[in-house]
Amino acid sequence: MSIELDLVPGGVARALDALPLVDHHAHGATARDLSRNAFEELITESDQPVPEWMTQFDSQLGFAILRHCAPVLGLEPFCTPEEYLARRARLGAEEVNRLLLGAAGIGHFLIETGYRAEELLGPSGMAEASGAPADEVVRLETVAEQVAAGGCEASAFADRFARALWERTRTARGLKTVAAYRYGLDFDPARPARDEVTEAAGRWLAEGGRRLSDPVLLRHLIWTGLERGLPLQFHVGIGDPDLDLRRSDPLLLRGLIELAEPTGVPLLLLHCYPYQRQAGFLAQAYPNVYFDVGLGVGYTGARSVSLVAESLEVAPFAKILFSSDAFGPAELHHLGALLWRRAMARVLGGFVAEEEWSVAQAVRVASMVGAENARRVYGLAAGG
Amino acid sequence: MSIELDLVPGGVARALDALPLVDHHAHGATARDLSRNAFEELITESDQPVPEWMTQFDSQLGFAILRHCAPVLGLEPFCTPEEYLARRARLGAEEVNRLLLGAAGIGHFLIETGYRAEELLGPSGMAEASGAPADEVVRLETVAEQVAAGGCEASAFADRFARALWERTRTARGLKTVAAYRYGLDFDPARPARDEVTEAAGRWLAEGGRRLSDPVLLRHLIWTGLERGLPLQFHVGIGDPDLDLRRSDPLLLRGLIELAEPTGVPLLLLHCYPYQRQAGFLAQAYPNVYFDVGLGVGYTGARSVSLVAESLEVAPFAKILFSSDAFGPAELHHLGALLWRRAMARVLGGFVAEEEWSVAQAVRVASMVGAENARRVYGLAAGG
Amino acid sequence: MSIELDLVPGGVARALDALPLVDHHAHGATARDLSRNAFEELITESDQPVPEWMTQFDSQLGFAILRHCAPVLGLEPFCTPEEYLARRARLGAEEVNRLLLGAAGIGHFLIETGYRAEELLGPSGMAEASGAPADEVVRLETVAEQVAAGGCEASAFADRFARALWERTRTARGLKTVAAYRYGLDFDPARPARDEVTEAAGRWLAEGGRRLSDPVLLRHLIWTGLERGLPLQFHVGIGDPDLDLRRSDPLLLRGLIELAEPTGVPLLLLHCYPYQRQAGFLAQAYPNVYFDVGLGVGYTGARSVSLVAESLEVAPFAKILFSSDAFGPAELHHLGALLWRRAMARVLGGFVAEEEWSVAQAVRVASMVGAENARRVYGLAAGG
Repeated sequence: MSIELDLVPGGVARALDALPLVDHHAHGATARDLSRNAFEELITESDQPVPEWMTQFDSQLGFAILRHCAPVLGLEPFCTPEEYLARRARLGAEEVNRLLLGAAGIGHFLIETGYRAEELLGPSGMAEASGAPADEVVRLETVAEQVAAGGCEASAFADRFARALWERTRTARGLKTVAAYRYGLDFDPARPARDEVTEAAGRWLAEGGRRLSDPVLLRHLIWTGLERGLPLQFHVGIGDPDLDLRRSDPLLLRGLIELAEPTGVPLLLLHCYPYQRQAGFLAQAYPNVYFDVGLGVGYTGARSVSLVAESLEVAPFAKILFSSDAFGPAELHHLGALLWRRAMARVLGGFVAEEEWSVAQAVRVASMVGAENARRVYGLAAGG
Repeated sequence: MSIELDLVPGGVARALDALPLVDHHAHGATARDLSRNAFEELITESDQPVPEWMTQFDSQLGFAILRHCAPVLGLEPFCTPEEYLARRARLGAEEVNRLLLGAAGIGHFLIETGYRAEELLGPSGMAEASGAPADEVVRLETVAEQVAAGGCEASAFADRFARALWERTRTARGLKTVAAYRYGLDFDPARPARDEVTEAAGRWLAEGGRRLSDPVLLRHLIWTGLERGLPLQFHVGIGDPDLDLRRSDPLLLRGLIELAEPTGVPLLLLHCYPYQRQAGFLAQAYPNVYFDVGLGVGYTGARSVSLVAESLEVAPFAKILFSSDAFGPAELHHLGALLWRRAMARVLGGFVAEEEWSVAQAVRVASMVGAENARRVYGLAAGG
Repeated sequence: MSIELDLVPGGVARALDALPLVDHHAHGATARDLSRNAFEELITESDQPVPEWMTQFDSQLGFAILRHCAPVLGLEPFCTPEEYLARRARLGAEEVNRLLLGAAGIGHFLIETGYRAEELLGPSGMAEASGAPADEVVRLETVAEQVAAGGCEASAFADRFARALWERTRTARGLKTVAAYRYGLDFDPARPARDEVTEAAGRWLAEGGRRLSDPVLLRHLIWTGLERGLPLQFHVGIGDPDLDLRRSDPLLLRGLIELAEPTGVPLLLLHCYPYQRQAGFLAQAYPNVYFDVGLGVGYTGARSVSLVAESLEVAPFAKILFSSDAFGPAELHHLGALLWRRAMARVLGGFVAEEEWSVAQAVRVASMVGAENARRVYGLAAGG
């Protein structure tokens, strides 16, 4: 018996290690070399300078970098931040990306390109650096802001946005909204009337048409996105301080979920921390709801096992996905995958060791959550 | 030492296995044979058809059925859904109920009869199938809807409801409200005035007097229930999508709890997921508050250990109860009890193994939560 | 390998046992002998008499007292409440305090003196009983109520309060606000205008100037406190039923946190249960936010490991502190420290055993959270 207990979680872990994941929501890796300051500011959600009495390396994410990324760059685990950053600088961004992305075991990337894209690798750059195919997810708000930047009358905004969205998403796999950042998820879920949109567009364009945060326009973008018909990702839960975490509770989306159900469009709730149990409830209750615990897995490091475990409670296994939500340092892409695999191996291996699940069930669920569900939702070819 | 550590959790587990539980909130088992579709729709809270690309068996609850119920029906654990359902069909509903209810180890059932009762075994049917006594819990809203269905003037509603409630509950052990489904727990806690009730009843009866969802009437039912004086159960937390989970947070009941305290009526918060910690706080803060984590235990399957553990944090042990909240398939009654026992054995056994609790303490708390607290609250005879 | 796994958590535990903690938020120990009733009423947050069908010893906190405090008083672990209280009475309050505080391993106490101080040891009494230095934290609301009690015109209130606060805090290390109890954390974060303050003071003083609960005045106190410039503690989350736990969510402080950031004053969120993950997010997002999980650690007893683990997720390690929030029985001071040490040893030792952290990292983080962060924030000399 004790031999079986030892082997069994190992069997699940080996299956997870061999599984090419679909990272259904990541941003590009940075193509630039990073100063210590720049690196530290990219491993926190804070938008303030790092206080002089602390370092962002003293965090679960920082410790995970020193533990798991250091060996990929040829260092001992648990090296110092100084040693790590020195090696990183010596190798250069391109080689660092190649090493960390290559070792992440990703079978397919979906890259969201709507935020600070000029600093980051795009889908083709990610494909090249990682050796895995990479497709695009388009951010609704960015398309609208580009329409405004190009010059647009209020009365023409709705049509111009629709045309731009169709044009911009010809080869895209999905859409994304950051309404949680721009307003909160507590917006009126109904599709706004045409004249409301025109009026709101008038106000926004008159102010310069930059950062779109008007709730009428945000709803209009979402409803136009639902019409476009691609799977629609929602930022939910943890993020930078721009966001009021209270107004980022996925339960606030209930009205929209119900109104959107007839469209058949899959709604994908991203991150969700600390509301992963609420997201799981929505994924059980509504056929059009999916979720992941990306971002939180990286930030919680050694504690990610608990987060992943909580994501495996009430949602059907066909409704849970994997993502890294990595942005910038390729460490985040690498750790998103590595920590998720370790957490899944520990959680599912635990179910097996406790004789609650069979090994076959554990391996199948790992494959569903890690790859198959995303392949089905986004229509990706099997195996890449 | 290692021998003790091995034996000790086993001792707690054996005590739990031998303990006849009081399931203080369950619905009846279904008396019908179930198609695959019908079965799958009864093992989820979703009210939509199961999408063709998934099965509800791919869930913690589904896996728990294949793991723990299959052997009760004479199959190997981890059989396929097809094998399971074929065996279930061959045995027939009556035999399935007899086997699963009989093996659940329940000493006393309290059966809530207010929802789709025509499909389910009533208290006497449950007693017969399980071999354990079964008493009734009466749903307030159903009694009110029956008064309306019988024809009633608005001005007579309050009296007619009171009379019907007293009549209907002559032998009942408790009352139940589903205000969380019908409106949300964020209702005004004060007892409504007589003319408010008459006015609201007028509106409701004019519309046909069917599904009662007016918050004035819901409050009136609750306050009449408090006057009736039987222990009063509240649906709290997880449920079907009819319910806004945000408005089902038990902390919303604070005002009512305080107003109801002088009545001396025990208020029992059912389910509570994912708000079990909030419920535990209320149970510590207010002498009239009790709670359980029923429903969630079944739905979280192999993860129920975590839910049960969180229920054992800040509430006094005299304020925590056991329920299955099973509805329909007797698998849910069986698993409610089995998974709760396993979770308690693991959690309390863990406290013992970590040398934080004695075995005697663990066994006593298991008995309090599993049976004694409910016997005291509902006035059930000791041992059944 | 197995030898290493056994030793390693032990190494972390030994380092924690040897670490003199800074308890950055406690009240005094009671100087009085306590009847059984009085004792039981001090080991719960309930403000109601203990019902005759239960004892507060049947709780995680009660079990922890019998397990861990009994041996300090010379009894066997897991003795009965009667044996425990008899020994306690025989030793007398002074000796009980000396034994329990002396064995808590505290290097420095910060004592909040604003609540029922006449029943409790003050900082000097705590220093004498424990052998550790003890400084004061001053409660804003108490200072304001003392100003009112001394007689004050509405128009003079703001100046009189400021003068009293500066006077009262000449040697204090920090300030504390209980706005969560008096109103809720959902107050307008902006500094109120002078005439608003005068008007609100007029209303309050006209009513007798006792319990201060006007939100304009609470805000005024907080902003005056920010001007005073000492670290400012906020009661957050769990507390007695005076408090609406829903309105005690730390995320409600977002607006104030942002407005207060330019002052450079550290804001310390106390307790936070069950919102510890939300507090962790704020501590990551905002440089001026810190938090602890005091109070909850004692109340959750054998389950405190889970609470401490959740506090170690997304916050940088430089932003997490230790406190007991003990009030009254010295058992609470003792257990606050003991249970936190055991929980940290188990959680950090677990990270090490899983090869996610090095022993050196674990020992360093234990020291940061247990003492160094508080020494930096409050400007305490190293080592006491």
